[in-house]
Amino acid sequence: MEIARLDSLSNFRPYRYNHLDMQIKDLGEFGVIEQLCAMVVEQRSGPDNGAGLGFRLEVDAGDDTAAWKTGTGTELITTDTMVEGVHFTRATTPWRDLGWKAMASNISDIASMGGLPLYAVVTLGLPPETEFDDLKELYGGMLEINNEYGVAIIGGDMVRSPVVFITVGLTGVHSGELMLRSTATEGDLLGVTGFMGGSGGGLKLMLDEGNDAGEAAQYLKECHRRPWPAVGQGQQLARAGVKTAMDVSDGLADDVGKMMRASGLSARVFVEKLPVHPALKEMFPRDWVDLALHGGEDYQILFAAAPETMDRVLTLLPQPAVVIGEVIMGQPGGVSILDNQGREWASETGGWDHFG
Amino acid sequence: MEIARLDSLSNFRPYRYNHLDMQIKDLGEFGVIEQLCAMVVEQRSGPDNGAGLGFRLEVDAGDDTAAWKTGTGTELITTDTMVEGVHFTRATTPWRDLGWKAMASNISDIASMGGLPLYAVVTLGLPPETEFDDLKELYGGMLEINNEYGVAIIGGDMVRSPVVFITVGLTGVHSGELMLRSTATEGDLLGVTGFMGGSGGGLKLMLDEGNDAGEAAQYLKECHRRPWPAVGQGQQLARAGVKTAMDVSDGLADDVGKMMRASGLSARVFVEKLPVHPALKEMFPRDWVDLALHGGEDYQILFAAAPETMDRVLTLLPQPAVVIGEVIMGQPGGVSILDNQGREWASETGGWDHFG
Repeated sequence: MEIARLDSLSNFRPYRYNHLDMQIKDLGEFGVIEQLCAMVVEQRSGPDNGAGLGFRLEVDAGDDTAAWKTGTGTELITTDTMVEGVHFTRATTPWRDLGWKAMASNISDIASMGGLPLYAVVTLGLPPETEFDDLKELYGGMLEINNEYGVAIIGGDMVRSPVVFITVGLTGVHSGELMLRSTATEGDLLGVTGFMGGSGGGLKLMLDEGNDAGEAAQYLKECHRRPWPAVGQGQQLARAGVKTAMDVSDGLADDVGKMMRASGLSARVFVEKLPVHPALKEMFPRDWVDLALHGGEDYQILFAAAPETMDRVLTLLPQPAVVIGEVIMGQPGGVSILDNQGREWASETGGWDHFG
Repeated sequence: MEIARLDSLSNFRPYRYNHLDMQIKDLGEFGVIEQLCAMVVEQRSGPDNGAGLGFRLEVDAGDDTAAWKTGTGTELITTDTMVEGVHFTRATTPWRDLGWKAMASNISDIASMGGLPLYAVVTLGLPPETEFDDLKELYGGMLEINNEYGVAIIGGDMVRSPVVFITVGLTGVHSGELMLRSTATEGDLLGVTGFMGGSGGGLKLMLDEGNDAGEAAQYLKECHRRPWPAVGQGQQLARAGVKTAMDVSDGLADDVGKMMRASGLSARVFVEKLPVHPALKEMFPRDWVDLALHGGEDYQILFAAAPETMDRVLTLLPQPAVVIGEVIMGQPGGVSILDNQGREWASETGGWDHFG
């Protein structure tokens, strides 16, 4: 969820939304989202419809998913969209991979809360000239990843549109404490599951053409085409007592910045600690740090915990996770990068602005 | 949900989805949806992720909403999309009305199951040149209707797109028995809440220009601009023991056909029983029957019940509902229209084919 990516309600400052006479590209994606979120929360009379039936809103707009408590547990919902020419092109993303990835980005949101993904509704916007066989490939890709993760498509909508878009809404369930992005505290260490930058590297290989044969290239392209959201890791983290997490989807540095912004703190990331696959270093001997920090679409989990918790947690996880930084006092959302020569610089917000 | 509009699983015939070499416009919306639904259900390994936590899928793709049981009740989810140039134009649907209607069509899906709408996630596809003030109007319209119905927006996504689209995902809850579209039986009477054709009449006035002043015209345009989904009526119907219902969104005759198709039966609709507001007859003395049967976007509830149940139910409803037809043996999905001169004709499927 993008509304979710930005802000936790805990540090919402209500904006005045007077007449602005601006286009959204001038205001920027995050400006637009902040103002609309504030408007929704201020002017909303609910959420109280479900109170009599035991429903209570637990996480509002501002995290990877929204969540509510019921009599029996916590339920989650998230939604994510991919638009042709904006999030993908047919050249780099075949239909089957598009299906996989559209579902993966949502599963990853559920994973980052520590939840188990459950039911999906799929909306497709399609030009009438779409080949039916392509559509079957798209569904084939969704079914492949869904069967890996136990997710079931249970409904949706299909509409005519001049441009292909795919919106997935995904529910999930959680039997313990949710991990939020707003709860990091000073002195926490930052950890990530899996490798960083592989997806960005794979995309770069495809865009640059040539130079993409061989095992290392294949591995990186596979990272881009078929990301595996860290559902098991997320559940394990939550069970082990980690309170703070989000998914790494827009690039590690950018997502660290979002977590710090939501938590009202800064962070320092250590280049030498970045978990990078040898294939990325092999194919991008000069750019691998940049790809690991800003590549995007890794669909791993970024989490924060006190050092003693972190020590314990890292040994519990079924697959490796590593410490990559620390939470410090400072400008909310500030991220600095420290390399192994001791140089430190502020991370530019490599943030993807949809309207910029 | 459109996947929902078509078929209940009870009469799914698995299709062979071999290589077809067809574009979706050739196959038609319903052909595409049928084949994809069959593929999803056949190839899906789930839904079983939630079983350990007490979740059980109750209504699959093929009705107005999907639904699952939890330990404490039944939960619903639906999704509906509007695309500029396909479902609306800025000429006939100002931004505020677009917000209202995008939410109304989803609330109506929950209403037709007998449920209470709860939480919404909103996805917007927007060109970068979109005026921020227009976006506030859009959210203003969503908030207006949400506050009327107790719905809360709790998340969403916002993406760049060359064409405006808005996708709403909406959850709901139900404490009793769901009303389905597949459970009509021979001898049932068909009832509808509210008036038919007002929205279609209002749209026609706006498209034809001129001739749209005066009280009757205002009323009809209001029907088109601000439909009021029948949530209270739906809950009352379910509580009174009605088992079969769906929302009237694509035109009454078309929706009767869908209910009959899902139930494997035919129906006869009586022109003289059609609930039509005097304003529609005043503005469209020649076309009101056609508008009432095929107008679309009424967002009322069509329901079926045995005569004795129907008798009892009609007196219980807080707002009027009337009998408009009967369920008979025949070709599944067949609908005939009987006028007050005793002439009977087969209803053309005035069905909106997105890709046709």
